[in-house]
Amino acid sequence: MPLEGIRVVAFDVFGTAVDWRTGVARALAAAADRRGAVLDEWAFADEWRERYHPALHQVRTGSRAWANLDRLHRESLDDLLERFGVGDVFDERDRRELVRSWHRLPAWEDVRPGLQRLRADRTVLPLSNGGYALLTELVKHAGLPVDGVLSAELAGTYKPDPHVYATAARLLDVQPHEMLLVAAHGWDLEGARAAGMRTAFLERPWEKGPHGLPDRAVDVTSDLAVTAFTELAEHLAPAVAR
Amino acid sequence: MPLEGIRVVAFDVFGTAVDWRTGVARALAAAADRRGAVLDEWAFADEWRERYHPALHQVRTGSRAWANLDRLHRESLDDLLERFGVGDVFDERDRRELVRSWHRLPAWEDVRPGLQRLRADRTVLPLSNGGYALLTELVKHAGLPVDGVLSAELAGTYKPDPHVYATAARLLDVQPHEMLLVAAHGWDLEGARAAGMRTAFLERPWEKGPHGLPDRAVDVTSDLAVTAFTELAEHLAPAVAR
Repeated sequence: MPLEGIRVVAFDVFGTAVDWRTGVARALAAAADRRGAVLDEWAFADEWRERYHPALHQVRTGSRAWANLDRLHRESLDDLLERFGVGDVFDERDRRELVRSWHRLPAWEDVRPGLQRLRADRTVLPLSNGGYALLTELVKHAGLPVDGVLSAELAGTYKPDPHVYATAARLLDVQPHEMLLVAAHGWDLEGARAAGMRTAFLERPWEKGPHGLPDRAVDVTSDLAVTAFTELAEHLAPAVAR
Repeated sequence: MPLEGIRVVAFDVFGTAVDWRTGVARALAAAADRRGAVLDEWAFADEWRERYHPALHQVRTGSRAWANLDRLHRESLDDLLERFGVGDVFDERDRRELVRSWHRLPAWEDVRPGLQRLRADRTVLPLSNGGYALLTELVKHAGLPVDGVLSAELAGTYKPDPHVYATAARLLDVQPHEMLLVAAHGWDLEGARAAGMRTAFLERPWEKGPHGLPDRAVDVTSDLAVTAFTELAEHLAPAVAR
């Protein structure tokens, strides 16, 4: 019983709960097909995701005002379409649909059964840098059994800013140490730990595709390391009534 | 098809979706029984609820800082226990449990089946003056099929301040007129209308008990008036893909 007193299980979404790479690449391939364009959808998806950290960093450090993930995705999409030489192929509607493909991503297979079990005696929700609307739609589309949605948008900044984790604990009226963050990324777990939360690393070796370099358990500090949400459900001690 | 283009159905909770009076009176009766105290639990529940509006008004007008509903409930509980002559009977733990009875209220019978149908092609969530933690627990306890939780707490003020409704629309990334507020109270629908939302009055003749004076359809202005969530589901035009 390594982790006692956990009332809330908050989980990261992109990479941890859903396979963004496959979902986004499929949407890109479909859009390219429709327009008769040639595009390496996997390379495009990878580069789109790589623009994530610098954009979030600008908001976190205050060098730009709050902008939700949809807007950041749109900006980087417009850039990348030019760079891939297809800037004149995709119109406004295509671009909106592509941004929206981040709202409709396939969950890894263990997620639904694992969340179902975790949810039996705990509050379970995503805590993601995705916007509130994005997360609401993603959760509904993927059929994830959750008790709500927590977005970095509610804090007006992005993970790993400790304010995001603290806002989540405040809204749920629990102490940070009563929350467990589950994530496939060391930087996210570090932020949660700095805010006083407990942490579970969920290894997703395929998140970044066959040639990507995902975080591995051996390199990440956490209270617990697992390879599936179902495994996590087995490790948590029964919740204590408050 | 009286209401087209509704993407989000937001519903009020206390009175509209759950029978607060029965739930709170039962908790009061159980607590009194445990302590061997004599208490008119129905009168107490009614008076407790009546303290609601003045307390919220103070926050809305800025005459006191933000305080969530649990805290306001606790303050009025402490007052009322004195007034009912049982201030020395209930200890700290009793009082916490009583405040928490507002997190665990029975849903009216039409709510679950009605929400299930509404949710098939729309985003459906509570928009309540209850705190985020309260609502998360209430929804889970009552087994309500929803896509998340929206609390006045996210706006830092209370309904009917238009800021609460506007915050909900902003977080869901929809225009206010794409949202429908469902409530059993005219004052709530007025606030929603002032913020540009569409409105459905849900008549709950039993909300305030056999001698109470609930709002009635004939006195309330709204786009639609129904007597159950299931009836509401029949009235809404199919949602349009965005």
